[in-house]
Amino acid sequence: VQANKLRPVPWNRVVVDDRFWAPKIKTNREVSIPLQLEQIRKTGRLDNLRRAGGKLEGRFEGIRFNDSDVYKWLDAAAYSLGTHPDPELEAQVNAVIEVVAAAQQESGYIHSYFTLERPDARFACLAINHELYCAGHLFEAAVTHYEATGSRALLDVALKFADHVWGLFGPGKRDGYPGHEEIELALVKLHRVTGRDRYLTMAQRFIDLRGSRPSPFEAEFAAESAWKNVFDAKRIFYKGDQYDGSYAQDHLPVREQSEVVGHAVRAMYLFSAMADLAAATGDQGLIAALDRLWTNLTTKRMYVTGGIGPSRHNEGFTSDFDLPNQEAYAETCAAIGLVFWAHRMALLHRNATYADVMELALYNGVLSGVSLDGEKYFYVNPLQTDGTHHRQEWFYCACCPPNIARLLASLGGYVCAESDDGLWVNLYVAGTCQARLGGTEVTLRQTTDYPWSGEVGIVVEPQTPLEFELRLRVPRWCRAADVSINDGSVPLEAVDGYIGVRREWRAGDRVRLLLGMGPEHVVAHPDVIPDVGRAAVRRGPIVYCLEQADHDGPVSRIILPAEEPLEEVREPDLLGGVITLGGTGYRLFEEGWDGHLYRADRQPAEQIPLKFIPYYAWDNREPGDMAVWIPVCLAQGGLVR
Amino acid sequence: VQANKLRPVPWNRVVVDDRFWAPKIKTNREVSIPLQLEQIRKTGRLDNLRRAGGKLEGRFEGIRFNDSDVYKWLDAAAYSLGTHPDPELEAQVNAVIEVVAAAQQESGYIHSYFTLERPDARFACLAINHELYCAGHLFEAAVTHYEATGSRALLDVALKFADHVWGLFGPGKRDGYPGHEEIELALVKLHRVTGRDRYLTMAQRFIDLRGSRPSPFEAEFAAESAWKNVFDAKRIFYKGDQYDGSYAQDHLPVREQSEVVGHAVRAMYLFSAMADLAAATGDQGLIAALDRLWTNLTTKRMYVTGGIGPSRHNEGFTSDFDLPNQEAYAETCAAIGLVFWAHRMALLHRNATYADVMELALYNGVLSGVSLDGEKYFYVNPLQTDGTHHRQEWFYCACCPPNIARLLASLGGYVCAESDDGLWVNLYVAGTCQARLGGTEVTLRQTTDYPWSGEVGIVVEPQTPLEFELRLRVPRWCRAADVSINDGSVPLEAVDGYIGVRREWRAGDRVRLLLGMGPEHVVAHPDVIPDVGRAAVRRGPIVYCLEQADHDGPVSRIILPAEEPLEEVREPDLLGGVITLGGTGYRLFEEGWDGHLYRADRQPAEQIPLKFIPYYAWDNREPGDMAVWIPVCLAQGGLVR
Repeated sequence: VQANKLRPVPWNRVVVDDRFWAPKIKTNREVSIPLQLEQIRKTGRLDNLRRAGGKLEGRFEGIRFNDSDVYKWLDAAAYSLGTHPDPELEAQVNAVIEVVAAAQQESGYIHSYFTLERPDARFACLAINHELYCAGHLFEAAVTHYEATGSRALLDVALKFADHVWGLFGPGKRDGYPGHEEIELALVKLHRVTGRDRYLTMAQRFIDLRGSRPSPFEAEFAAESAWKNVFDAKRIFYKGDQYDGSYAQDHLPVREQSEVVGHAVRAMYLFSAMADLAAATGDQGLIAALDRLWTNLTTKRMYVTGGIGPSRHNEGFTSDFDLPNQEAYAETCAAIGLVFWAHRMALLHRNATYADVMELALYNGVLSGVSLDGEKYFYVNPLQTDGTHHRQEWFYCACCPPNIARLLASLGGYVCAESDDGLWVNLYVAGTCQARLGGTEVTLRQTTDYPWSGEVGIVVEPQTPLEFELRLRVPRWCRAADVSINDGSVPLEAVDGYIGVRREWRAGDRVRLLLGMGPEHVVAHPDVIPDVGRAAVRRGPIVYCLEQADHDGPVSRIILPAEEPLEEVREPDLLGGVITLGGTGYRLFEEGWDGHLYRADRQPAEQIPLKFIPYYAWDNREPGDMAVWIPVCLAQGGLVR
Repeated sequence: VQANKLRPVPWNRVVVDDRFWAPKIKTNREVSIPLQLEQIRKTGRLDNLRRAGGKLEGRFEGIRFNDSDVYKWLDAAAYSLGTHPDPELEAQVNAVIEVVAAAQQESGYIHSYFTLERPDARFACLAINHELYCAGHLFEAAVTHYEATGSRALLDVALKFADHVWGLFGPGKRDGYPGHEEIELALVKLHRVTGRDRYLTMAQRFIDLRGSRPSPFEAEFAAESAWKNVFDAKRIFYKGDQYDGSYAQDHLPVREQSEVVGHAVRAMYLFSAMADLAAATGDQGLIAALDRLWTNLTTKRMYVTGGIGPSRHNEGFTSDFDLPNQEAYAETCAAIGLVFWAHRMALLHRNATYADVMELALYNGVLSGVSLDGEKYFYVNPLQTDGTHHRQEWFYCACCPPNIARLLASLGGYVCAESDDGLWVNLYVAGTCQARLGGTEVTLRQTTDYPWSGEVGIVVEPQTPLEFELRLRVPRWCRAADVSINDGSVPLEAVDGYIGVRREWRAGDRVRLLLGMGPEHVVAHPDVIPDVGRAAVRRGPIVYCLEQADHDGPVSRIILPAEEPLEEVREPDLLGGVITLGGTGYRLFEEGWDGHLYRADRQPAEQIPLKFIPYYAWDNREPGDMAVWIPVCLAQGGLVR
């Protein structure tokens, strides 16, 4: 076990008070969370639990795993209560917890579908039935609710269920594990708040068993062949007649895995739990596997937005460099899962590379998942559209809305990390972090207009003067950084992506960080076939796109000059306040094409002004098309800038 | 009914004797047709019919519609016997015909799956069970065999089955029609050789009923819900809970259809039959629908190769301008179906536009379907690959191999068309066509190295001097044509894409046609998103591609200079003899990318020699990747050439 471990400064000891995130968190609290509860009610998700608790007549409605949306909503609401107490929301949370508690069976089991419809088949088909997945989300919500309010109302329900799981699946019991990972990382959280080893042991057992041969899923599918959806579900676990399992990361024992495969959300939740376990146990086999998987994901299978999982077919991964733009699946939940995993990797390895990816996903592939007004969501996040893809208020399978709500509500937890003698700043977010280094309280106050500006002011306020190392992340996109302390410049020694300053810090010490930030054209690895001859535009952590709303016609027809500079325009009244990037491009004429699909003629184009907006902010105005990767006029020398 | 109708000069009155097609037809005859019979035997397709005829014990093997492969093979073999008599092949054909005849039930019904496995369910679910589809292929083979050999052995079997169908589905009987069109065009062929009106009436009835509401398929699905594959099949006929039918062109009555939708092969077979019926009846409503459908297909939904049906999901059409390259489905059978339809449209409208598309599909999207050695096939014909897509010897669903075999064996039938006082040349293929104009035999001898050369010599030999109009197609790709007769130039009057010369023709009159032909860059309509900023290369009717075998590395990394000329290189020993196009391009370096997926740096490239080969000839050497649409260095003026 690693000594002097790195821990996040807990979400409830961080105040986010900036112009970028604070308004989004406010919208999340005031609009999204209430509307989501309304949707959860309207769609029978609460009624299912009421029926399972005998409080209502009738049959189960919707998808089998709909309980999880209730738990994720509770998780989001509890985070919000922890940073922004609200008696009305608290009453709603308590009412929902009562419903959940009443749905708990004598054994500890909770899952409204099986309780209502197939009590005989509880835990009969872990591969597809999501009972352990739902349990995991319940456990996470319970931990958050306990941390936020001090109440054990939900935690005791969760522990009773966790003990039931332990009784069925603990050491010496049934060798089963969930088809959809989630409970593993939740069990680690239960271990953290209770200190009880069995929860960590249970998580480890689920992780260690994954990839067994024969897979326990094979017997489950054989036994459950009469189930109506097993035929379809089975198909995705098999290659022809041969069990494969890669859909659920069950193709190999986890320590032998090297490529990210299968359902992307499942993969991210598994890898997050593996990182938790590695942090707890120092297991080098796990760490080596995580490192291989990380390299595969971030150097071969990730969109420039931090979106992951290109295929609709398996909601997940395909092959190296297969990153289609228009067909991109890039589920919002998968990008959220990447934030979870990247955060844990950053803590495990104390390396800013991981926080760079966390930031990338957070500001782009995650944030695109919710509209600026907090009322609509993307499940699928393509990088190019034909004008027909738009956010929706809710989904039949509604995993994404409450997932983004709980991430936004817990954002403070990703900003800083602490060890016994160090303080890491991973995100530049104005506000305060209340860290504990050894026994000393240290407050860190950030002032910044990040991500629009790379200028960050930090005031360090230890309770008493304290020597420790302050580590400031220098993002990989930054070409020039500068740090001064109390107006004196300090030598830059970036180690593992952090500039570290070790000194005795005194209350009121001021740090000033300047991260050079400007618009850049980005190109993709030449094996990403659809991006060859195209460029994307980025500024700092923000990936940009072109949207039809700014261009009086489809942006798919636009071609970008290679050498044209892009001009930053601060637009405080646009899209919640953004910096747009202006320039000049060419748009192919549609005129003259009537009756033609292909022509050998020259293709005329007109010069038009371009306006790039942040990718996360698209589809918040009149509907139209959008593109991240723009065909670029390559200079004859074959060089792109 | 149209007077003085245009008819194809029949396939068995045409001798193909050129350097392009004749060797391919020889390979088809000597390699493909024998190997296909071997596959048909090995995979139990003949045994199914033997079992249905009580000649063998055992159960049905394979896919329900496997009989159709036997019929399509018979069709191919019969065409071949008609142009190249071969006692060994004839004996094989006769043996197969005996098996088929023995499988015929007392009623006339033949379908080995239902005869063996579900005799109670014959014609119970026309939507998905392909009995009428198989019947259609049987009828087509029977007509060909009769025309090729004069034998009624298969024709009488077909007529007995057709009369059974008439008895069940004729006027006043059950209002049913096939889920997979095919029998309609086959019934028109039966009508042509027998003169019996009932077959035309039956075809018309199937065509007229399509699009009924409620669709008869709805009741079939409801009644057959216990069938194991109905769940999947049903899904593709429905949108949510609502019957849709567009998968099988059953969304609207055919005369109200305007967009090509659903399964592409089905659509092509339906439209071919509609054109046959329109030619027979002069039905203006059908013609108007066909014209709308044609315009939609050829101006919005067709690949530059003549491939059609971009989506794997429905093996068919999606939306306007949705033509992804790497994900292209473009089934070989669909391009073959387009040849069928385009041929009929050319005859119906006496307009060369349709023959242009027929030529395009034939030389590109169809011909790519078979390897040069005649041993392997593409089912799917993408326009860009990552190096993993290769031809196969056979398929579990093996519709494409015998379909391409019968098209090659019948190629002569597409070359010329005749009316009472005109002779149309639609394809430039060296050899002879024996036409009949009114009562006079007219032989047309073509000498040409088409498609590599645009120079065509034609000798006209009427039995006796005869005034008629000779019409020579001037392809749309041709920018300059010249015609001379007996060494005297004639004024060019292209009408509907044909240069027509009306005169009294005498034996030995010589026509010389020069079609200007050179390499050209082609661009796509700006709404074809994946092709924006890319160009394809074409020369005459041949569409080119880049293949890894010529480029020492993936061609997906290659960028094309816009203004670079392409040099024609005659390579008689390459790929069966082709003209390749050489030039200079840029290839993006892979070096320096290790550990990076995206970079803001300039993207270095090296100059390399390029060699474009005909698209149809790719994947005949060492495996690698391939691309038709190449990113192009656009000049700053936004112009592409």
